[in-house]
Amino acid sequence: MEELKLTSLAGRPRTVVAAGPLRLGAGFAVIAGPCSVESESQLMTIARAVKDAGADALRGGAFKPRTSPYAFQGLGLRALKILEKARRETGLPIVTEVLDPRDVSWVSEFVDVLQVGARNMQNFSLLKEVGKGSRPVLLKRGMHSTLEEWLNSAEYILSAGNPNVILCERGIRTFEVYTRNTLDLSAVPAAKELTHLPVIVDPTHGTGRVSLIESMSLAAAAAGADGLIVEVHHNPKEALSDKAQALLPAAFEAMVRRVRAVRACVESLP
Amino acid sequence: MEELKLTSLAGRPRTVVAAGPLRLGAGFAVIAGPCSVESESQLMTIARAVKDAGADALRGGAFKPRTSPYAFQGLGLRALKILEKARRETGLPIVTEVLDPRDVSWVSEFVDVLQVGARNMQNFSLLKEVGKGSRPVLLKRGMHSTLEEWLNSAEYILSAGNPNVILCERGIRTFEVYTRNTLDLSAVPAAKELTHLPVIVDPTHGTGRVSLIESMSLAAAAAGADGLIVEVHHNPKEALSDKAQALLPAAFEAMVRRVRAVRACVESLP
Amino acid sequence: MEELKLTSLAGRPRTVVAAGPLRLGAGFAVIAGPCSVESESQLMTIARAVKDAGADALRGGAFKPRTSPYAFQGLGLRALKILEKARRETGLPIVTEVLDPRDVSWVSEFVDVLQVGARNMQNFSLLKEVGKGSRPVLLKRGMHSTLEEWLNSAEYILSAGNPNVILCERGIRTFEVYTRNTLDLSAVPAAKELTHLPVIVDPTHGTGRVSLIESMSLAAAAAGADGLIVEVHHNPKEALSDKAQALLPAAFEAMVRRVRAVRACVESLP
Amino acid sequence: MEELKLTSLAGRPRTVVAAGPLRLGAGFAVIAGPCSVESESQLMTIARAVKDAGADALRGGAFKPRTSPYAFQGLGLRALKILEKARRETGLPIVTEVLDPRDVSWVSEFVDVLQVGARNMQNFSLLKEVGKGSRPVLLKRGMHSTLEEWLNSAEYILSAGNPNVILCERGIRTFEVYTRNTLDLSAVPAAKELTHLPVIVDPTHGTGRVSLIESMSLAAAAAGADGLIVEVHHNPKEALSDKAQALLPAAFEAMVRRVRAVRACVESLP
Repeated sequence: MEELKLTSLAGRPRTVVAAGPLRLGAGFAVIAGPCSVESESQLMTIARAVKDAGADALRGGAFKPRTSPYAFQGLGLRALKILEKARRETGLPIVTEVLDPRDVSWVSEFVDVLQVGARNMQNFSLLKEVGKGSRPVLLKRGMHSTLEEWLNSAEYILSAGNPNVILCERGIRTFEVYTRNTLDLSAVPAAKELTHLPVIVDPTHGTGRVSLIESMSLAAAAAGADGLIVEVHHNPKEALSDKAQALLPAAFEAMVRRVRAVRACVESLP
Repeated sequence: MEELKLTSLAGRPRTVVAAGPLRLGAGFAVIAGPCSVESESQLMTIARAVKDAGADALRGGAFKPRTSPYAFQGLGLRALKILEKARRETGLPIVTEVLDPRDVSWVSEFVDVLQVGARNMQNFSLLKEVGKGSRPVLLKRGMHSTLEEWLNSAEYILSAGNPNVILCERGIRTFEVYTRNTLDLSAVPAAKELTHLPVIVDPTHGTGRVSLIESMSLAAAAAGADGLIVEVHHNPKEALSDKAQALLPAAFEAMVRRVRAVRACVESLP
Repeated sequence: MEELKLTSLAGRPRTVVAAGPLRLGAGFAVIAGPCSVESESQLMTIARAVKDAGADALRGGAFKPRTSPYAFQGLGLRALKILEKARRETGLPIVTEVLDPRDVSWVSEFVDVLQVGARNMQNFSLLKEVGKGSRPVLLKRGMHSTLEEWLNSAEYILSAGNPNVILCERGIRTFEVYTRNTLDLSAVPAAKELTHLPVIVDPTHGTGRVSLIESMSLAAAAAGADGLIVEVHHNPKEALSDKAQALLPAAFEAMVRRVRAVRACVESLP
Repeated sequence: MEELKLTSLAGRPRTVVAAGPLRLGAGFAVIAGPCSVESESQLMTIARAVKDAGADALRGGAFKPRTSPYAFQGLGLRALKILEKARRETGLPIVTEVLDPRDVSWVSEFVDVLQVGARNMQNFSLLKEVGKGSRPVLLKRGMHSTLEEWLNSAEYILSAGNPNVILCERGIRTFEVYTRNTLDLSAVPAAKELTHLPVIVDPTHGTGRVSLIESMSLAAAAAGADGLIVEVHHNPKEALSDKAQALLPAAFEAMVRRVRAVRACVESLP
């Protein structure tokens, strides 16, 4: 763990990253929405539902990193305009992934938080580019990345000038096949003993199974995470990506209530 | 997940495994004690401390599975006699590991729960032998074992006649080096959706770092685990094994209070 | 790599392990046969075929470590008697796996080499027991085991008094699903720079795919392995275990010729 | 393995990728050079040495993907000019890594083969960009990537219009710590049974240990690889990156001779 200069906790207060009304690192934040923006009606339906359920921000993919070139790649600019409309209507700040350094600047005009996905955690050109701006960056841990590498990737962003980084544990790749990835919740307290940056958890990709998401969300809240990012879809069977792992709005709403209750309990512990 | 007959949840109520006053699967149980029994004074000191801190059972190794043949291998029979004395004084049931099928029968005379360690999860001779008796068996997940393999190992014990199996997630081996293993908490709700057996968590081996144990214990309670098994030592620096990961009694006592508070909160969720 | 005393290469010549006419560590040895002994006619057919193809020893399982208790567990004593008969007829030394320390002594009466399987690499009771005798031990690397742990397991056997250990790389468990395991051929030269013991390779379990076995066998010979252990079956589709990965005798025969040619080439390199 | 259209072997002859005098997929090609271009004298010294040793192409990094933002990041354009000079003098085609889609077009003016590194194997913007040109692309397997994902990444390049893809196995990340990565040689014949593209091996990153490189190179040749990419440095201790794993020119020269002898042997097998 050499070479961490700006992300190190040593001698620094914990960072709160703000994006509109969203405060990451102060209280417990819930970011929710569909994997991909598929249409205006789909996104608006889900946006209203997650707002009503108590989400603090809306996620939705405009550019999708898909294993195959023949899979749905996202609606691009059209998705961003739909996301903008959802923000106007719901007041929720928008989180979306960028894949290409050439997109960082103009996509930043549309959204509140830029996500760097797991596959791009060591895409150093992209890290430097999001580091040049001031839009908060949600930096997912690579599925093959050590804690040390993850924090060094954050260091790339901070050293380029942008202090607004949110770390997100989303599961690592192991031999286990029952879950899509192995959610490494110990990475939350581990990261927080090394860095001042907020750390959230993605139980959707971390497990890949709807039935495990609530348990892992409760566990994340108890482990000290600063929030969650969760996939919600009103009609998962017809989703264009990640069909098997999106929560229905009603299940999400119930989960948010339970997670906030556990979090309140943990914060009140003597 | 074919071939699970007796461990499958389908059509069965959840199992409660009893060992003296210990009830695994009803409420939240905490098993604690040193990695190895080192001496009578060491074990009695720790036994009293974990009893006072609210532990439900005492763990202590008599036979130690060590990577090197030249490392401390445990006190064997002498340790069992010391554990017996600790039970007499504290009333705590005793959990200890067996390594050899030839030891199962006579060690069962001394202790309340037989542990099958991670390295022996697919030691089928040992599984069959502990299956022939009725002593409860704490079956740790192998560090390289899938959920399916783990449940099949439980099936070996049940199919040999012993229904009293407690599953224990203790971390799997991954590329991450910051933690000793990667604690796979999703294995708790995953196992519980497949089997009626109780599932507990070992945050000590699961993380290998004292600083992460409480967070992971709170998370385990929130994720629905039926209990914890934790290493406690009054003088970790002088411990003969696992120096770096044992909690001091005071830290353990505070943790147990917090874990039980989180558990009560989770159980009261609507 | 501390604590290796007897397995360390430092200051020692390379060990040749002899079992009847088999010499491991001098030349290139090929051990072949079915996963399980299923019947006398099955075993004798395969024994003659591998003998004709140039194998140096016959493998065949009498006690099978199976994930499920309901899978075929081997013919036990009956298998050993069949193996004995095959030795009488073909002159090939016999390699078979032992699972239980109680079986070591009497099984040693029937066979020439005792195999300790991957799942038992850290079954320390079994290691100590095979260490008490003088029958050569083929010690497979655990699917989750580091080089250091593997060599320490050999050290258990040597320190108990038996110097005749053959190491066998058989693939480790990774995230890759195309192959059954990931054959770690670098473990061959790595082990040979640390220990004087011979090292062979199991391309059958290492890949789990018939189509890859010859390529990996050629690679093993080129990498400096002291031999191979390969599954051969005259009727793989009807095999009681490991159906998908056994070579037909004709393919095995052609492969042995090619492997020996590559080995001769490698040994003649300036 | 759905969705492979253009990279699939089915119904297609094997591809030969040409870059100047280099032919990948016809014979056995050796690409060698330093990790990073550090200075003109360093690069020219090494270029002459690898040329004399029989290399077919020169590798050298101009843009380095480093874990930490404070590590040496490469000389950029200056390195490219030095590489160009080396090509003029030695006639060796140049292989260099690109990290950013904005660099693809202009870097292509300087070099013969563009490398996409392991960390960028799923940087889909970069894949699409190198797919738009016609410069051959050396696509390294991600350290966390399955065979299926690797081939799908090649599919991105082919489907964008560039048929000139060379696959390169460079080791995957596992729990083993003795080697830097675990070189998965079975990926060579596995890839070749699925795709018509040539497949080479990087034993330098695959092992991370100088002492293992020759054995793994011989094994790669025996396993059917179409070539090697190897780090060579005349003064490894003073290298600005990857100090511990570069071969000295003399060792490289001896290795090339042996590898070609093994390859000739394998090709002459009946």
